Amino acid sequence: MTQHPGRTTGPRPRPRDLGIAPGVLPPGPANSLTDVPGVRVGHVTLAHDDAELPVRTGVTVVVPAPGSVFRDKPAAGLEVVNGFGKAAGLSQIAELGVLETPLALTNTLGVGAAFEGLVRHALDGHPEIGTTTGTVNPAVFECNDGWLNDIRGLHVRPRHVRAALDAATDAPVAEGAVGAGTGMVSFGWKAGIGSSSRRVDAGDGIRWTVGALVLANFGSAADLTVTGVPVGRALTPEHAVEQEEFARGAGSCVVLLATDAPADARQLRRVARRSTVGLARTGGIVQHGSGEYALAWSTAQRTPHTPRGPVRAASAVAEHGPLMDLLFRAAAEATEEAVLASLFAAHPVTGVRGHHAPALPTEQVARLVHGPAR
Amino acid sequence: MTQHPGRTTGPRPRPRDLGIAPGVLPPGPANSLTDVPGVRVGHVTLAHDDAELPVRTGVTVVVPAPGSVFRDKPAAGLEVVNGFGKAAGLSQIAELGVLETPLALTNTLGVGAAFEGLVRHALDGHPEIGTTTGTVNPAVFECNDGWLNDIRGLHVRPRHVRAALDAATDAPVAEGAVGAGTGMVSFGWKAGIGSSSRRVDAGDGIRWTVGALVLANFGSAADLTVTGVPVGRALTPEHAVEQEEFARGAGSCVVLLATDAPADARQLRRVARRSTVGLARTGGIVQHGSGEYALAWSTAQRTPHTPRGPVRAASAVAEHGPLMDLLFRAAAEATEEAVLASLFAAHPVTGVRGHHAPALPTEQVARLVHGPAR
Amino acid sequence: MTQHPGRTTGPRPRPRDLGIAPGVLPPGPANSLTDVPGVRVGHVTLAHDDAELPVRTGVTVVVPAPGSVFRDKPAAGLEVVNGFGKAAGLSQIAELGVLETPLALTNTLGVGAAFEGLVRHALDGHPEIGTTTGTVNPAVFECNDGWLNDIRGLHVRPRHVRAALDAATDAPVAEGAVGAGTGMVSFGWKAGIGSSSRRVDAGDGIRWTVGALVLANFGSAADLTVTGVPVGRALTPEHAVEQEEFARGAGSCVVLLATDAPADARQLRRVARRSTVGLARTGGIVQHGSGEYALAWSTAQRTPHTPRGPVRAASAVAEHGPLMDLLFRAAAEATEEAVLASLFAAHPVTGVRGHHAPALPTEQVARLVHGPAR
Amino acid sequence: MTQHPGRTTGPRPRPRDLGIAPGVLPPGPANSLTDVPGVRVGHVTLAHDDAELPVRTGVTVVVPAPGSVFRDKPAAGLEVVNGFGKAAGLSQIAELGVLETPLALTNTLGVGAAFEGLVRHALDGHPEIGTTTGTVNPAVFECNDGWLNDIRGLHVRPRHVRAALDAATDAPVAEGAVGAGTGMVSFGWKAGIGSSSRRVDAGDGIRWTVGALVLANFGSAADLTVTGVPVGRALTPEHAVEQEEFARGAGSCVVLLATDAPADARQLRRVARRSTVGLARTGGIVQHGSGEYALAWSTAQRTPHTPRGPVRAASAVAEHGPLMDLLFRAAAEATEEAVLASLFAAHPVTGVRGHHAPALPTEQVARLVHGPAR
Repeated sequence: MTQHPGRTTGPRPRPRDLGIAPGVLPPGPANSLTDVPGVRVGHVTLAHDDAELPVRTGVTVVVPAPGSVFRDKPAAGLEVVNGFGKAAGLSQIAELGVLETPLALTNTLGVGAAFEGLVRHALDGHPEIGTTTGTVNPAVFECNDGWLNDIRGLHVRPRHVRAALDAATDAPVAEGAVGAGTGMVSFGWKAGIGSSSRRVDAGDGIRWTVGALVLANFGSAADLTVTGVPVGRALTPEHAVEQEEFARGAGSCVVLLATDAPADARQLRRVARRSTVGLARTGGIVQHGSGEYALAWSTAQRTPHTPRGPVRAASAVAEHGPLMDLLFRAAAEATEEAVLASLFAAHPVTGVRGHHAPALPTEQVARLVHGPAR
Repeated sequence: MTQHPGRTTGPRPRPRDLGIAPGVLPPGPANSLTDVPGVRVGHVTLAHDDAELPVRTGVTVVVPAPGSVFRDKPAAGLEVVNGFGKAAGLSQIAELGVLETPLALTNTLGVGAAFEGLVRHALDGHPEIGTTTGTVNPAVFECNDGWLNDIRGLHVRPRHVRAALDAATDAPVAEGAVGAGTGMVSFGWKAGIGSSSRRVDAGDGIRWTVGALVLANFGSAADLTVTGVPVGRALTPEHAVEQEEFARGAGSCVVLLATDAPADARQLRRVARRSTVGLARTGGIVQHGSGEYALAWSTAQRTPHTPRGPVRAASAVAEHGPLMDLLFRAAAEATEEAVLASLFAAHPVTGVRGHHAPALPTEQVARLVHGPAR
Repeated sequence: MTQHPGRTTGPRPRPRDLGIAPGVLPPGPANSLTDVPGVRVGHVTLAHDDAELPVRTGVTVVVPAPGSVFRDKPAAGLEVVNGFGKAAGLSQIAELGVLETPLALTNTLGVGAAFEGLVRHALDGHPEIGTTTGTVNPAVFECNDGWLNDIRGLHVRPRHVRAALDAATDAPVAEGAVGAGTGMVSFGWKAGIGSSSRRVDAGDGIRWTVGALVLANFGSAADLTVTGVPVGRALTPEHAVEQEEFARGAGSCVVLLATDAPADARQLRRVARRSTVGLARTGGIVQHGSGEYALAWSTAQRTPHTPRGPVRAASAVAEHGPLMDLLFRAAAEATEEAVLASLFAAHPVTGVRGHHAPALPTEQVARLVHGPAR
Repeated sequence: MTQHPGRTTGPRPRPRDLGIAPGVLPPGPANSLTDVPGVRVGHVTLAHDDAELPVRTGVTVVVPAPGSVFRDKPAAGLEVVNGFGKAAGLSQIAELGVLETPLALTNTLGVGAAFEGLVRHALDGHPEIGTTTGTVNPAVFECNDGWLNDIRGLHVRPRHVRAALDAATDAPVAEGAVGAGTGMVSFGWKAGIGSSSRRVDAGDGIRWTVGALVLANFGSAADLTVTGVPVGRALTPEHAVEQEEFARGAGSCVVLLATDAPADARQLRRVARRSTVGLARTGGIVQHGSGEYALAWSTAQRTPHTPRGPVRAASAVAEHGPLMDLLFRAAAEATEEAVLASLFAAHPVTGVRGHHAPALPTEQVARLVHGPAR
């Protein structure tokens, strides 16, 4: 069984440990977002009972590329699959096609604090911001963890972003009830952070990686589907939490996709759109109340903040051959597996108002998937 | 076995005839787009060898609501899932949120002829167009049937739209290699037109219907998935057509969704977006070269061309309760089943350059879906 | 001369006081956003030298309609004219077509604090948020006041939003260097908050009002245009501040448009788009670094958070007659005049790094506009 | 006075011939779209009384770059300013960011014929289309000339596109009542085709050109504005045609912008958006019934249909310096002057139902613009 960080009470199997391998493309070495060179991830988990109500929340940050992303901005494309959400920084990413801060994920009402945390981090590292150059565009994504977390308590503070950045590493991404995933629930089971990756062969000896990190907090229990098998229908009567009232007004899923393919912003938006395919394969129907946002970026295509001449040399993936489809497939598969990974990794959590999100019974899921004959 | 029109060499089973029933919501009485009252569909099939090269194409029209849709415009919402396509009329639908002609489907290079056909039909019925009022916005959708059809021959003419309109009926939609579907191929098998419907219970004694019609011409053979079962992997080595070179630059899927729920244009766009979930369930990954367009409209929300006062009374589906999710689920399920229906219904077709699209081996598919134990 | 609040060192004339009356439609009684019944505006001005560097910033809030806008959400439409900005809450407004908090305007790096301020206000008034219902979508808009203000000091705190809400009133909007406008500069002159309104006659005895509030922080000095007269070319050599280095990376303009016409979300987006016409008339070219965002909402079209049945009765402006054009014209004219009003009202401000933004020489402008012969 | 083609009854002055020079940037040598090297324009004018009703229409084509634009596709960006129009080919331009046919402009109901004309031209030159590769995306734009032209007669046929292409030249663009502009009316005066260009200095010895071609058919008579002077208010009572009933349901403006700056698709969309500034300067308010579409493309950035490897070398304009603003300003100014040029060039036309569109009294306009003192 793969050893994996972020499991607070012992390891749980990842999907492939139980023979569940969505799609056809091979994963990267760690089957994780950090298989894309230069990408780092850090978590701060806020899980304690020191406050009046249980705190079950946190912050996850993704450093999208090496060096200063403000001074050398990675190309990025964005898809708002269902805009019932409060993410910040989107319009500038859409307009300019670049990132210029790390990405912060947290709970819905913590977006303001995370915005300020990213601003403080950018100001500390860049004395030119707000003096000799303009401002900075923090990118914050969120899901609603209010079914388990005292979300009204606004426990996420700007300093937690800094702490998560300090903890960021290129190790395999810690999954489950960790960081921003601490209080998240999907398909009636405890979920949160999940990750996966895919390799694509571009020919000419070139190989690219697509990595996915999801913050999964969506889906109705009966809909859970694992590699095509509708396990949710079998599992629900026995185990899954009933949170209908919650699911309607809440939920959400954030999908972050990194690649070292030199795609431009328009192409990256096309890659980001294929996240919907991956979410649909897990049983999602993009519910009304589920804010679903996908962001894709390239570590291999960067724009300097200060131009070095009137024209910038750039590059793009050859669009009219098979390569875009390989990237699309990789995005869909990595998204699908990352959602499953978030469910497989998560230990159970009890939170506010006695709400309890159980752990997915992974062995039972594996039996349902593999069938009696196997 | 259900008797169904449009089968030129005898009936083929629909998915439910073989126990394949995607999703959880009940279908309408005919499990067809025309379950939505007032919607009519007509086909003109152009399949002959009278020309220099085989002609395998046609026109399908959908009359979206009773009466003049120019004078009383149905609300509509549009989603361009992947804009690699040549559909006409989109920007006005997006801007004004209404339809004002029937919808025409045909092959890619026939869009101009279909546009003119819709214009001629609108002019004939409306002497005011171009004289005392403005013009009219024809809505045309297309897929590329050039793998089977002599698409360079431009065999579709404006008169074929009129003929299809004359043939339009509220009978269950003829499926498979008929009308615009005559030359279409999906997942390596002959496909074309498919249809399905779902009923939703809105409470207060109100029931709504969502109907889907697809023009299916997308998907790689190995990806075909039927109610979660990856049948394409099992079928491909034995049967399916290899058309890799074609799939890359071509493909496409049109999804038309009608409802009698009184949704407004913004809500209908949200409904249309859920078609991607249905397409993904059949194995689609929204390939680069596959133009995928979804349109949803309401027969219960119409805007008069000539206002009757400064304010128009309107209505909308209650958005913050469960009803939007029911409509979304209905759209996803009806789309999924309509794609399968297009494959199940289609007889094999041989066309240009010796290309042959085989019929899906439906009995074998059913065995793969139901498994050895059933 | 009109007496008007918000002038810290004595009244300055509004444009109409000097015979400058853009457009052809009549203004409302106060020629201000608050001419739309139920709309209130409050400012908190942070202008002091108590910190290490000069503080020249603030918060302006707009309460878009009477009562709880969370429980009864006004219809809204959004246009991102140039997305070089950090506004929050946009994707949900675009998806659902409603507002559910007051609107907060502040400086760019204060968006996080303003987000949290709106959250705290919503939580205080709505115990159901985050417990029995979902979360809330704060709407924050911003411009960069870093040329005058110590923007790196993050002087805007969440409590300032509350204070601005407590100060909100339906009096004519205080203009110039007040609230969020404290540190803003346009066309080389001190600017900030400006407001205007227009009346439209809808027939049938119905009259509607369109009100505009702008946060103006855009434009190159030489481009300033007043009712068609290129006054910037005449003024620049003598007076205006040179801030080229600033203008390139900064700038921005927020346009808020309220109406009591019962327009739906789609129509309101169309109204919002016409703000560009108003901005262009003042000499704006929507510069690269100028984040320009327009939001329009209706006080006469509200969606309940908790539905009262499956269908919501709604309404819409009759679209195919002349009324949309009247609303469009009103939006363009009110935007144009609001920008001028922000310039006319603003007293000079000296801020960080010795930067000084002079007051527009309004009498000279009036002479240039009216010409020697008048 | 400049000699200029396309004037059927003698030359009329261009705006600069009368001292009217909008903006601050210098025009190219011919002040015309064809100042951008490699761009060609051709017209077919259909103006005769041989049919039952007067025919006053035509086709204008723009060849956007040298060589086969199908095999080597110019980068392009699109802005739908107001989507009340029937342009074809838009969704693929938006998705892929390239052109692959010449651009055809014609009357609204002729879009189908023009689509087919472009298809036939593409098929003739490319035997691979529809055989060994996919299809082709014709780009057609339109305005409604039904106030002068027998638009119901569908007089534009596919062959007229071919004829216009055969006539295409890099000479200065013929303006006024020519080609697609034959039946167009703006601000109550005969208008149609207009063109202009601007030069920008990119530094490092690099100079770029932005050229505009408009098909102008929009605007209310009282709104006409020439370099800031509201001449429409002065002219209207004496001269301009009253066509209120027409303006409401019709109108439109197409803006085509070419550049040799190596902008990418995202940047070109940003350039296209600035056309609204130019239209607003002429008095436009983007009326409800006026379909306004802007397309910008680069002759210096082309994508091969058949990739030559997994990665395509590309380039982009340095975005965070002053160059984008120079391109934006050039687009706004060239658009503004092109609209004026369409009015200045057009001879009067009498058409259907006795409708008469007078020629703009250019000398009077010049007097109004220059004022009594000059």
